[in-house]
Amino acid sequence: MPRVTIFGTGLIGASIGLRMRQAMAGADLEIVGADSFRDHAKAAERVGAIDRAEPDPRLAVEGAGLVILATPILAMRELLEEMAPALEAGAIVTDTGSTKAEVLRWARQWVPPAVSFVGGHPMAGKTDTGPGAADAALFEGARWAVVPTREAAADAVEVVTALARMMGAQPMFMDAAEHDAYVAAISHLPHLVATALFRLTRDSEAWPELSLLAAGGFRDTTRLAGTDATMAHDIAITNRAQIAHWLSRYREQLRVLQEQLEDTTDETALFRLLSESSFEYDAYRGGAVGRHEIDEQMYEHMPDVAVLDMLLSPTMAARARELVRRQEERLEESERRARGERR
Amino acid sequence: MPRVTIFGTGLIGASIGLRMRQAMAGADLEIVGADSFRDHAKAAERVGAIDRAEPDPRLAVEGAGLVILATPILAMRELLEEMAPALEAGAIVTDTGSTKAEVLRWARQWVPPAVSFVGGHPMAGKTDTGPGAADAALFEGARWAVVPTREAAADAVEVVTALARMMGAQPMFMDAAEHDAYVAAISHLPHLVATALFRLTRDSEAWPELSLLAAGGFRDTTRLAGTDATMAHDIAITNRAQIAHWLSRYREQLRVLQEQLEDTTDETALFRLLSESSFEYDAYRGGAVGRHEIDEQMYEHMPDVAVLDMLLSPTMAARARELVRRQEERLEESERRARGERR
Repeated sequence: MPRVTIFGTGLIGASIGLRMRQAMAGADLEIVGADSFRDHAKAAERVGAIDRAEPDPRLAVEGAGLVILATPILAMRELLEEMAPALEAGAIVTDTGSTKAEVLRWARQWVPPAVSFVGGHPMAGKTDTGPGAADAALFEGARWAVVPTREAAADAVEVVTALARMMGAQPMFMDAAEHDAYVAAISHLPHLVATALFRLTRDSEAWPELSLLAAGGFRDTTRLAGTDATMAHDIAITNRAQIAHWLSRYREQLRVLQEQLEDTTDETALFRLLSESSFEYDAYRGGAVGRHEIDEQMYEHMPDVAVLDMLLSPTMAARARELVRRQEERLEESERRARGERR
Repeated sequence: MPRVTIFGTGLIGASIGLRMRQAMAGADLEIVGADSFRDHAKAAERVGAIDRAEPDPRLAVEGAGLVILATPILAMRELLEEMAPALEAGAIVTDTGSTKAEVLRWARQWVPPAVSFVGGHPMAGKTDTGPGAADAALFEGARWAVVPTREAAADAVEVVTALARMMGAQPMFMDAAEHDAYVAAISHLPHLVATALFRLTRDSEAWPELSLLAAGGFRDTTRLAGTDATMAHDIAITNRAQIAHWLSRYREQLRVLQEQLEDTTDETALFRLLSESSFEYDAYRGGAVGRHEIDEQMYEHMPDVAVLDMLLSPTMAARARELVRRQEERLEESERRARGERR
């Protein structure tokens, strides 16, 4: 019987199992789950994410055509070393780790020539962790980075791409260095940004009052501080240089921002930064992706024409006037329609 | 007829009007709305948040027993100056601005002795702005800072407290300096933290790729970058010193964090910071409020016992062992119950 083995039956591993079961309903397939925390494997079995738990890594990969590593990153190294001799010739190994350069290095070191390793990283997650939070729709619409080793067979890359699609995700090919630089910026840096903000306020003498007053904005900005520490620590020490690079740039950005905030002789630089960010953020959230698309969509998403008076750069003011004119036309148009409907 | 006047019929002002209409259904009350952006006032009237729009500030406060300022902060200064002579003796003026020291200073300057000013600040909001986003339940369960001027009559403080309760919020008394320091930490700093993160990534050459890969974590951490720029700018320049203070402390926190990240000789400090933050954040999100309560609830919320192995401080390890023991007992207990039910 075709067999898939999932190492790590937490949120990601169990969600993959659930989705696979759903997509392959009725197919002749066994999903084996292995987790160093046995209760996790049992829980994954209970929710139907795996067919059976097998704690011994070598026994778990016996007869498996596809092996998925969904553990914290450092655990993958030990797992690869331990199970590699038991992998079947022709098997395909992939992972879901948040950094890729180190994982691919370990794969090259331990995976035998007859086995292909193709790295993967689904860009999805949620606040709750563990198999109890597993969700077959977790990866729906998400990007799934696919990072093959040079040695991987072409059909192995196809299988991992198909796995990403089966999960409802969109595969995106890149190399390990690109991947690690990108995720340092949009995933690892945000985690540290959130952690530092939570740490600072939590350690304040005023925390009892601060925590009472804190509303949705604080909760959203600090949400990533709740990330599982083992996962986050493994990420930090396997992507240290890239994260440090972005952290330095972020600190410089904050330094400039503070300079603008404290400059009482010129309040326009701060306003321009705040308004550009607000417009561009609305465009980004409105679904615009990439620099070009956002530049185009800015005009449609400008949030508040009161801002117009304070826009000081002539080009921005001209854009804004044009927007206001169009917005007023649209409002009049919709009011005309509303009046028409009432008749 | 009793009359309430709301200046600024955006999200906050229109939500107050909607809730008041709901709470006072059938009562003999007129809600007058004034907005320098007339389409906002018209829209607020359409959704039933105000009974009529009156653009002239002096005419708008005629006969009003309660006047609510829900405009951006700097606009309040001009409004107070302009309408103060037209305020009725015995009237009560309050506001919803995000900073209080400056607003109270303006109130002392312009509000006549026969009128009471009691500052207010509902700790609620959402991503969408404008009267179209108005929601009678916006303030449900939120804290509402109440910051009276020394000169305010006792019954005026009671009226503003009752207003907060009518909105479904919990009033919290504090003075202006306390208020501005607290909100700098949990509202204004997070906004700049989010803006700097969005600005940095948005300005990167890799933004097209970054924005494709960015998932929920990035979106949540940067959400406040979409804050209306006029509102944010007014906050920044009326609470500059407090925000700069917290921004300096935040930058120092990041410097230490980066030092820990780059220290390859000792990886334990970073892990301890990440795990403490993760535990404490889960406790905070689980509803624990204040230092003491969180210290107590930490034990109940520890997310992953795999962390145990890596906990290096003896006290934390002892706590963790105790937790694991209790957690295992609970798991066994629930499994016993599950087996019992299956019989």
